[in-house]
Amino acid sequence: PKHYNITLLPGDGIGPEVVSVAKNVLSLVGSRHGIEFGFQEMPVGGAALDLVGVPLPDETLSVAKQSDAILLGAIGGYKWDKNEKHLKPETGLLQLRAGLGVFANLRPATVLPQLVDSSTLKKEVAEGVDLMVVRELTGGIYFGQPRGFSTTEKGEEIGFNTEVYATYEIDRIARVAFETARKRCGKLCSVDKANVLEASMLWRKRVTLMASDYPDVELTHMYVDNAAMQLIRDPKQFDTIVTNNIFGDILSDEASMLTGSIGMLPSACLGESGPGLFEPIHGSAPDIAGQDKANPLATVLSVAMLLRYGLQEEYAAITIESAVLDTLNNGFRTGDIFSSGKKLVGCKEIGEEVMKSV
Amino acid sequence: PKHYNITLLPGDGIGPEVVSVAKNVLSLVGSRHGIEFGFQEMPVGGAALDLVGVPLPDETLSVAKQSDAILLGAIGGYKWDKNEKHLKPETGLLQLRAGLGVFANLRPATVLPQLVDSSTLKKEVAEGVDLMVVRELTGGIYFGQPRGFSTTEKGEEIGFNTEVYATYEIDRIARVAFETARKRCGKLCSVDKANVLEASMLWRKRVTLMASDYPDVELTHMYVDNAAMQLIRDPKQFDTIVTNNIFGDILSDEASMLTGSIGMLPSACLGESGPGLFEPIHGSAPDIAGQDKANPLATVLSVAMLLRYGLQEEYAAITIESAVLDTLNNGFRTGDIFSSGKKLVGCKEIGEEVMKSV
Ligand SMILES: CC(C)[C@H](C(=O)O)[C@@H](O)C(=O)O
Ligand SMILES: CC(C)[C@H](C(=O)O)[C@@H](O)C(=O)O
Repeated sequence: PKHYNITLLPGDGIGPEVVSVAKNVLSLVGSRHGIEFGFQEMPVGGAALDLVGVPLPDETLSVAKQSDAILLGAIGGYKWDKNEKHLKPETGLLQLRAGLGVFANLRPATVLPQLVDSSTLKKEVAEGVDLMVVRELTGGIYFGQPRGFSTTEKGEEIGFNTEVYATYEIDRIARVAFETARKRCGKLCSVDKANVLEASMLWRKRVTLMASDYPDVELTHMYVDNAAMQLIRDPKQFDTIVTNNIFGDILSDEASMLTGSIGMLPSACLGESGPGLFEPIHGSAPDIAGQDKANPLATVLSVAMLLRYGLQEEYAAITIESAVLDTLNNGFRTGDIFSSGKKLVGCKEIGEEVMKSV
Repeated sequence: PKHYNITLLPGDGIGPEVVSVAKNVLSLVGSRHGIEFGFQEMPVGGAALDLVGVPLPDETLSVAKQSDAILLGAIGGYKWDKNEKHLKPETGLLQLRAGLGVFANLRPATVLPQLVDSSTLKKEVAEGVDLMVVRELTGGIYFGQPRGFSTTEKGEEIGFNTEVYATYEIDRIARVAFETARKRCGKLCSVDKANVLEASMLWRKRVTLMASDYPDVELTHMYVDNAAMQLIRDPKQFDTIVTNNIFGDILSDEASMLTGSIGMLPSACLGESGPGLFEPIHGSAPDIAGQDKANPLATVLSVAMLLRYGLQEEYAAITIESAVLDTLNNGFRTGDIFSSGKKLVGCKEIGEEVMKSV
């Protein structure tokens, strides 16, 4: 049978619980599709800080790089909030993204008919929302140099960062976005602040140039402030959105909250070559960690993205997605997506229900 | 009687129509409160580009600076979209803000009971929303140096901008925010990205320091991505939000769209001394310009902010706000806020209705 090595990075908070469920689902689906998985679990984030004093141990990165795909749970927690920057769990995540070269972050925001009532948007606005944010993940103001603190001539302290994009960085994320839009509804909206920022002007120029390679994709441009409004006014106008690292951070979270069920949303981080990184978009939820209350479905759906985008195992991906929908249709809900008349279950039990539906 | 000089900057698109209505309302309210207004109209934005070739003529800035307060309509339009940066209408607006030194942008987002149905949010989520975004307006990535285009050693073109804040810039906007929160419900949420950006770490440090001067204000901190989510999940958790220029651009537009009626929302831009700049938050809407369809109420409410924050004429401000509410209670609506059973009127007519209620 085919064999893949998967690196598991459970991380912090609810990370271990949800990764454990997703791992079981992956193994089962593999056995149905003649795929064998080897798993290696490594520490990252706060867990790694506690264990070895850094948020991304070298060994974690090298094991991850040599595997076929990486599944991450969640990182961070109150415990490490006051740490210095280089000892923050978040820094481990940024080092992991950079170390793997995963410059393309695919973040779907889909309103499932079963969960449309969880949205704070009116039903007619929310239902049918199905968009994909393609966020640049290894450039821009997150990584730009120079950055730091300094003192002005007048003795004032300053803090500064650099938003910077090179043509090759824009071109490669634009290509992923056009390819993504082509496989979806053929509509791509590039979001920037080209009326103010030079980095955005270059972004708009390069994205526009690439459009000639994709005559079948309809390209539009939107300013980021307007995009933040339009997502609320009429989210269904969007199919695929492409944007830079910081705008993507903000807009993808905004888009995910439109669905009302961020416990359901997966994400994929992909590079030019090498393994992809897959993770739920929710955080580590330290307040409910270890209580078997977490919703593991975002991680289970991240495993579906791992199969589709990481291993090109489309059939196995679909098997997982159908099993999740069946589980919802059978009425099972964790607390975050519970509504009256449904069956309230914990993290493990909803995982078992998914496995029954596989 | 008291006398104030007001600079009118009608600008582009629907700007002239809405400013004309607001000017009439201001004059009438003045006459009721024993206040005399002198008006001087000056070009800015696209209108100035067409007239004299620059988006902010020196004379416009110097007249504005010598007046007691400035009322701006709107700027921009398709016609100038392809202009080079220094010839964009938007550049005129940025030069105006910098030239006036108006570093504090107050942007309320209020859901009026009369218009709660215009929101795309469920009624129970939208009703009662009443928050104020205090946005830093003359610093950060909008103005930071260095900025521009360059070529790397490898021959790659790059575009770059600098996000930078000095302590004095953070301190003065934080002070405005604490004072604002103190006059409202005493809750201030500072929004940043201090888990990634040094500029945000300094921001958080300075805002936290200032909290000791305001023991009566409850200060919290939130990451910008989470704030973008929380505004949708539960906007009523917010009272006053303070944030940097670019995050404020995005979040204040997001917050305003929650209300569903951005044709109703005013804003104020204030400096340490010198006249304030007051403008509706909506754009120039070139598609409906000159057709008497625009909603002038955001500009009328901007005149109320002008009276309150610019001239310390609180009673006159309240007179205007009550007249606007009366007009809504009497059933008058422009197209953007129309719902069945109400009386659809144009820009001029709704202005006349406001004047009848003064
Ligand atoms: C934890 C943080 C550094 C991270 C980011 O800003 O990228 C997170 O918000 C995300 O979106 O994955
Ligand atoms: C027109 C543009 C330069 C401006 C900004 O980004 O500040 C606008 O979006 C605003 O919020 O007033």
